[in-house]
Amino acid sequence: MNYRLIGNILGKILWVEAAFLLVPLAVSLLGRDGCGASFALSIALCLALGAVPLLFPIRRRRMQSIDGYVTVALSWLCLSVLGAVPYLLTGAIPRFADAVFETASGFTTTGATILSAVEHLPRSVLLWRSLTQWMGGMGVLVLFLAVMPKTGDGAVFLMRAESPGPIKSKLVPKLSQTAKILYFLYVGLTAAEALALRIAGVSWFDAVNHAFTTMATGGFSTHNGGVGDLGGPAVTWVITFFTLLAGVNFSMLYLTLQGRLGEVWRNQELRLYLILVVGYTAIITLSLVRQSGLPLGRSITDAAFQVVTLITTTGYATADFALWPALCQAILLLCMVSGGCAGSTAGGMKVSRIQLLGRSMGRELDKLAHPNRVSVISLDGQAVSERSITAAHGFAVAYFLTLLTGMLVVSVDNVGLLESLTASLTCVSNVGPGLGALGPMSNFGGLSDVSKYVLSLLMLMGRLELMPILALMMRNTWRK
Amino acid sequence: MNYRLIGNILGKILWVEAAFLLVPLAVSLLGRDGCGASFALSIALCLALGAVPLLFPIRRRRMQSIDGYVTVALSWLCLSVLGAVPYLLTGAIPRFADAVFETASGFTTTGATILSAVEHLPRSVLLWRSLTQWMGGMGVLVLFLAVMPKTGDGAVFLMRAESPGPIKSKLVPKLSQTAKILYFLYVGLTAAEALALRIAGVSWFDAVNHAFTTMATGGFSTHNGGVGDLGGPAVTWVITFFTLLAGVNFSMLYLTLQGRLGEVWRNQELRLYLILVVGYTAIITLSLVRQSGLPLGRSITDAAFQVVTLITTTGYATADFALWPALCQAILLLCMVSGGCAGSTAGGMKVSRIQLLGRSMGRELDKLAHPNRVSVISLDGQAVSERSITAAHGFAVAYFLTLLTGMLVVSVDNVGLLESLTASLTCVSNVGPGLGALGPMSNFGGLSDVSKYVLSLLMLMGRLELMPILALMMRNTWRK
Repeated sequence: MNYRLIGNILGKILWVEAAFLLVPLAVSLLGRDGCGASFALSIALCLALGAVPLLFPIRRRRMQSIDGYVTVALSWLCLSVLGAVPYLLTGAIPRFADAVFETASGFTTTGATILSAVEHLPRSVLLWRSLTQWMGGMGVLVLFLAVMPKTGDGAVFLMRAESPGPIKSKLVPKLSQTAKILYFLYVGLTAAEALALRIAGVSWFDAVNHAFTTMATGGFSTHNGGVGDLGGPAVTWVITFFTLLAGVNFSMLYLTLQGRLGEVWRNQELRLYLILVVGYTAIITLSLVRQSGLPLGRSITDAAFQVVTLITTTGYATADFALWPALCQAILLLCMVSGGCAGSTAGGMKVSRIQLLGRSMGRELDKLAHPNRVSVISLDGQAVSERSITAAHGFAVAYFLTLLTGMLVVSVDNVGLLESLTASLTCVSNVGPGLGALGPMSNFGGLSDVSKYVLSLLMLMGRLELMPILALMMRNTWRK
Repeated sequence: MNYRLIGNILGKILWVEAAFLLVPLAVSLLGRDGCGASFALSIALCLALGAVPLLFPIRRRRMQSIDGYVTVALSWLCLSVLGAVPYLLTGAIPRFADAVFETASGFTTTGATILSAVEHLPRSVLLWRSLTQWMGGMGVLVLFLAVMPKTGDGAVFLMRAESPGPIKSKLVPKLSQTAKILYFLYVGLTAAEALALRIAGVSWFDAVNHAFTTMATGGFSTHNGGVGDLGGPAVTWVITFFTLLAGVNFSMLYLTLQGRLGEVWRNQELRLYLILVVGYTAIITLSLVRQSGLPLGRSITDAAFQVVTLITTTGYATADFALWPALCQAILLLCMVSGGCAGSTAGGMKVSRIQLLGRSMGRELDKLAHPNRVSVISLDGQAVSERSITAAHGFAVAYFLTLLTGMLVVSVDNVGLLESLTASLTCVSNVGPGLGALGPMSNFGGLSDVSKYVLSLLMLMGRLELMPILALMMRNTWRK
């Protein structure tokens, strides 16, 4: 393990956090909301702690795969703890467990909150809350690679450990160039959405905040009533559209920009993602019209918005879907499990991983009739290595074990079994709201501190696709 | 596909069913409950249908693996449909969908029922209901192999397709001998339990019926209030003990009889099974004492009974655990998923399969630090083939897909999400009761016919560990 290199990168990551904290500091000073000193102090703390590793100069620049996992896991843990400091100093969230939960929920783009109301909070604090999601959406390490290309040999392991999906690939041969393109797309789409929301009649402040939390598939809102408070169907459809885009593999968005639409159209993950969105929306629309008697137009808008926001694990709500018919809730539960596409900002298991698992199961069934046939699983016309398939299976087992462990911990609070299960699911899939009494119109403030810490850890595990955090817990990682 | 051989075995299986139907016929004639004609007619139907394949004599005796799967799947489907005839003819269950559900629930040892009360039913019908579970527990094909040793080359595929567990092994080199030993143990334990229950004060009729449904890990009872109506703690503990035994791999019981206790003690699946039972019981006892204020003695009895009856997927109830604290329910949910040991009469995923999945996940984590290390997974000191591990992963994916599909179908009835999920789980794991409004003190009678048929299919899929029924649905199976 290259401790010095890991420490060095960790320090730089804290400096990146300090840089982002300048934004709410500026807003605070301009708006004179009295939070300036708190943000300044938080920045000073990040800078000071980030400088400590400089005392231990790097000897080797070589990085192994495991170093990548450990760096990413520790970076996210540090970001979450230090990101909570502004909440504590400004008094917006006075309790430590709550502040850590809210920050982890931010960086991991989960969007679960312990706040029952947000409109009374200073604008600078609300902006910081949205910014944590925007930073976490595309990934802090990816940004770091875009800004500082000469990190060392094996920096690709950092990117692999942070980017989601069963198969990792680079857009262009050069790593730092890939990272730059990703952030270019991310910034562009965020700006486009803010503009679209402004045109639809939303204030600049709300437009920017919701653009941050949409493109990150985060789900934090600046209003107590969430997206429903922002405006009518036009606003809802703008957010639906950009949320849908945020759940698409950014490689596909890049290919689209380059005009390579044929390749985009043939992408099997994208196709299944769109089929799921359309199919689920149709079923929920029918169910809402028949079982709840809502008018058709309203049903389509609600169904499309809720399917898109949950399959991308964003987690906004315009309606209290915890009160919808059981069939609708069952489908929303499937959305929360599958999540969006690999290489997007969405969480969950990812559509392509589920495709791999499904094809692997199909091959097993095939073996019943033809025990000796050797067949290769392919995705998008390319053979998938057995290594990737085994890893996808390992991920699925780890995902369900994590989910069940979270359920057990939350159930000690005696909030009900459905609540315990969906609280764990919504955190490990980085969605936000659960079902039942922890549904979209409720919050996680009533849980015990133990549950809040465990759920915070679950969010980090989910965002980093389990392995980096699990690696931290393995004895093997720390053995010479 | 050897259609003639498959048809021939199917015919013989129906004759086996006819033979078992003689028991309720005798009881009916002795007790003069007026059901004699119905049972006689059912027997005639089984004999006549079973004779049809004799018109197409067998040409080849060779059987392939896929023939085994198809034979087993079709046998169980036929058994379930024809086993429903006595319910319909006697008028005990007048509706076809209900009768099929009850029969499938019987043969698969699930124990879910559509009856709100059973005590008014004729004794002969109650006995047939218990007998279906006893037949299904050890397996009808296994019985067939024990009785008719000369089935043909490849009869081992029949046994493999019917017996549960990730790794199939024979007790002794000869297949028919293995089948005989299994039934010898099964009959012996059933008789021992009936005797023990009689000594504890239960009537002979109830003792025999509950011995049938305990050793099969079925869960049907002859009383409206279930096992709680039979007697005090002594009866509860007798049933707990025999249920625990029924969830153990029968190979271990055989080794115990032979005095090879060292091998039994070193069996890793048995150890984990006992650790889970003791650990879960301890947690639930604590939770019941602390959160529900029950006295300690009562809590231990209830907790041990409920953990054992659910981890073995028997599904009796002495208490309405759907009203217990969330932590208890969460643990009971884990019991329903894991199930008992491979090679027992219990359902669920099986403890050893979960061990395999866990170790495979551990190996994946190990690969993070040591990407190029080649390691072999072993269980009980023996290396497990990669083939078995891949199959276990395929099973897990198929299990969760089946579970979620069942949830979607039941949720159309709008019974609530927790009810939909646990109804599907309890059927695919062959447990019996669900949670919430489909808990142990309720029944499945209120569901739609579609849900009943789908859940019946789920029970068959669960009992046969998915692959045989899935094979029936695959195009590949039927292609030349």
